[in-house]
Amino acid sequence: MSIRLPRGTQDILPGDVEKWQLIEKKAREICEKFQYHEIRTPIFEQTDLFLRSVGDTTDIVQKEMYTFDDRGGRSLTLRPEGTASTVRSFVEHKMFGYANQPVKLYYMGPMFRYERPQAGRYRQFVQFGVEAIGSDDPAIDAEVIALAMSLYKEMGLKKLKLVVNSLGDKDSRQAHREALINHFQPRIGEFCSDCQNRLEKNPMRILDCKQDRDHELMKFAPSIIDYLNEESKVYFNKVQQYLTSLGIEFEVDSNLVRGLDYYNHTAFEIMSDAEGFGAITTLCGGGRYNGLTEEIGGPEAPGIGFALSIERFIAALDAEKVELPLNNGIDCYIVSLGEDAKDYTVGLLNKLRQAGFSAERDYLDRKIKAQFKAADRLQAKFVAILGDDELKANKINLKSMDSGEQKEMELASFIEEFTALYRN
Amino acid sequence: MSIRLPRGTQDILPGDVEKWQLIEKKAREICEKFQYHEIRTPIFEQTDLFLRSVGDTTDIVQKEMYTFDDRGGRSLTLRPEGTASTVRSFVEHKMFGYANQPVKLYYMGPMFRYERPQAGRYRQFVQFGVEAIGSDDPAIDAEVIALAMSLYKEMGLKKLKLVVNSLGDKDSRQAHREALINHFQPRIGEFCSDCQNRLEKNPMRILDCKQDRDHELMKFAPSIIDYLNEESKVYFNKVQQYLTSLGIEFEVDSNLVRGLDYYNHTAFEIMSDAEGFGAITTLCGGGRYNGLTEEIGGPEAPGIGFALSIERFIAALDAEKVELPLNNGIDCYIVSLGEDAKDYTVGLLNKLRQAGFSAERDYLDRKIKAQFKAADRLQAKFVAILGDDELKANKINLKSMDSGEQKEMELASFIEEFTALYRN
Repeated sequence: MSIRLPRGTQDILPGDVEKWQLIEKKAREICEKFQYHEIRTPIFEQTDLFLRSVGDTTDIVQKEMYTFDDRGGRSLTLRPEGTASTVRSFVEHKMFGYANQPVKLYYMGPMFRYERPQAGRYRQFVQFGVEAIGSDDPAIDAEVIALAMSLYKEMGLKKLKLVVNSLGDKDSRQAHREALINHFQPRIGEFCSDCQNRLEKNPMRILDCKQDRDHELMKFAPSIIDYLNEESKVYFNKVQQYLTSLGIEFEVDSNLVRGLDYYNHTAFEIMSDAEGFGAITTLCGGGRYNGLTEEIGGPEAPGIGFALSIERFIAALDAEKVELPLNNGIDCYIVSLGEDAKDYTVGLLNKLRQAGFSAERDYLDRKIKAQFKAADRLQAKFVAILGDDELKANKINLKSMDSGEQKEMELASFIEEFTALYRN
Repeated sequence: MSIRLPRGTQDILPGDVEKWQLIEKKAREICEKFQYHEIRTPIFEQTDLFLRSVGDTTDIVQKEMYTFDDRGGRSLTLRPEGTASTVRSFVEHKMFGYANQPVKLYYMGPMFRYERPQAGRYRQFVQFGVEAIGSDDPAIDAEVIALAMSLYKEMGLKKLKLVVNSLGDKDSRQAHREALINHFQPRIGEFCSDCQNRLEKNPMRILDCKQDRDHELMKFAPSIIDYLNEESKVYFNKVQQYLTSLGIEFEVDSNLVRGLDYYNHTAFEIMSDAEGFGAITTLCGGGRYNGLTEEIGGPEAPGIGFALSIERFIAALDAEKVELPLNNGIDCYIVSLGEDAKDYTVGLLNKLRQAGFSAERDYLDRKIKAQFKAADRLQAKFVAILGDDELKANKINLKSMDSGEQKEMELASFIEEFTALYRN
């Protein structure tokens, strides 16, 4: 019996993987321009990290984490998101002491959530995210949003919708929290047991409960935007002003709360409204998390960031039918006839590759006709043909698959002649 | 209290990560030339996969795997290596039916082994590996080795040693197995309990036992090379002939056995003999694994591949003091003076980035002197200076940090003028 993929996971195969590579390359280029630098944290962290940062009343922590003990009895968890690890690393390596502030980081890699598998949702998925830690200038909020928008737009997406909200500062959130308790308290018995637990501990999490999303009290729940204090309002206005000056269109959605505890002030989502994209339209989510460094045991260092799923990015590209500039066709395929010629192509092939060309030959002892077919399938630009007779005469034939022209060359100078011909 | 990295793992931070990026980029380029295509398999697999492929008497399976049950009660294991997953994927997606054969794949990503942490050894480490599945042409063995050697050499390593061996085919291995049992049987009581178990199940694994490596019987253990049958010898000779024709130097080491069960015929290691590189000198290991596809439930498809650790790659580059071409310096830093000018730079900065430049500004409300210092630290090639007065006059000053020359430009045409100046 064959062994299969673990449930809820996928293999990304040649033919698809090129899209991933392209997005990642573009993301790296944009991060370079925006001066965000890559950080790589481990795939797993101490479980406690996520309890403290993501929040122990969130769906992620309560239901979706892959948690296990290692052979030394330590509780580890496969990271469900990237911000907690990045901030942990920021604190652990004392990046708050770096001369360049804010510290601007990006990450790219697999995350893990044990969710019900469904179309477009995997238990292992890949996120690209950025974090700017050490500044509470609203211009950095706008920069982070601009970076995400640039990436989507430069990859060719057009049907994007940016939604922003403010979750306010500590005082604003406290006022909102009391209003939420007053709102839900009288009828909390009609809500799921998770929400009942959340009422005192973290009533804002009731707002993103998947189970109770249609309860009538949800529609009229107090909105954070009505509880923002003056400072929070000024901050939010400045962010909006900067977005406008960047030419980035947006909507304010006062119902936008993100499913993680650590957000305050700016929260945002980028959605796709491409036709046929399906129910899950959020491509990217992020926000500000002043206070998170302290939560993890470091000094104060206000931060903001976002994360986006590459899976959904590709789904959006597919939905908009964006044609990606994918590479096609190898430079040269070497066809050989006879044992000596076949042996000789081992070295010749390697020389072509060392000269910088993508090149291939046969490894299945196929007849010459089948070798030509293989060259066709690989969309070879040129086919070099070497038989035992040519080898003895120190010659080789090169055929351009574009023009059909064929040319005999000296074997000794083949690489130079090929290079010259190719560059023209 | 702050939360720290899990034991045996590391963060890779800006300043170091650029080396990783460079190696990975080079690896991708070489794979393109050699026509190996990326595959991405999940971080974890069903535990059974590794028991069947890596082998249940290996150190990896017995002592080093991160194995846990998911919330659905399935036994999962963080992948300790990449070949098993790649071959599982080959079988599951029926790649044996692809028109292009052999199927040539590469992977790059984290692997996990619960080992005693020590210098240069991590419990999470990154491997780059290739697999060519579907051909038993000895030319593909040579190609795989050539690919690894090209990568090391093109990155600048010189002190490399390639060691090859043959583990023979099934019959050769059976003859060797019997010789090993006869050799160790009389004194097996002097060996560790693991080795005692291995004697009947898999005596070759005794040869790479870390605990008993100094036992005197180890030195005189029967060598596989003396038990190769005619076919295996012919195969091995052909591999060596091709290596020679590729100009790749090698040594035959009849003691080379790899610590995984699935190898047969060609086995190889690439080592560094750079001074001060330390005890662990193996950079890359690989070999042929005909029969592995069947083990995993697929049809026959002979394969060969290698894996190399990026951590050790970097350690070897450091030991040889190779200077890597790392990027340094941003294109433009924008210094501003006054509130209006500061606000204006948000948009200007973004325009520079959209035009393809790496650019930065201040996000900490710093005085002009501190802004210039920041520009110096970032090795800015140019500094643009905008004050409220200039803004009113629609002007901006650009200073070349190379020449010290300063030039006033029209704000409206700044991006065009900057681009023209920069390209010169």
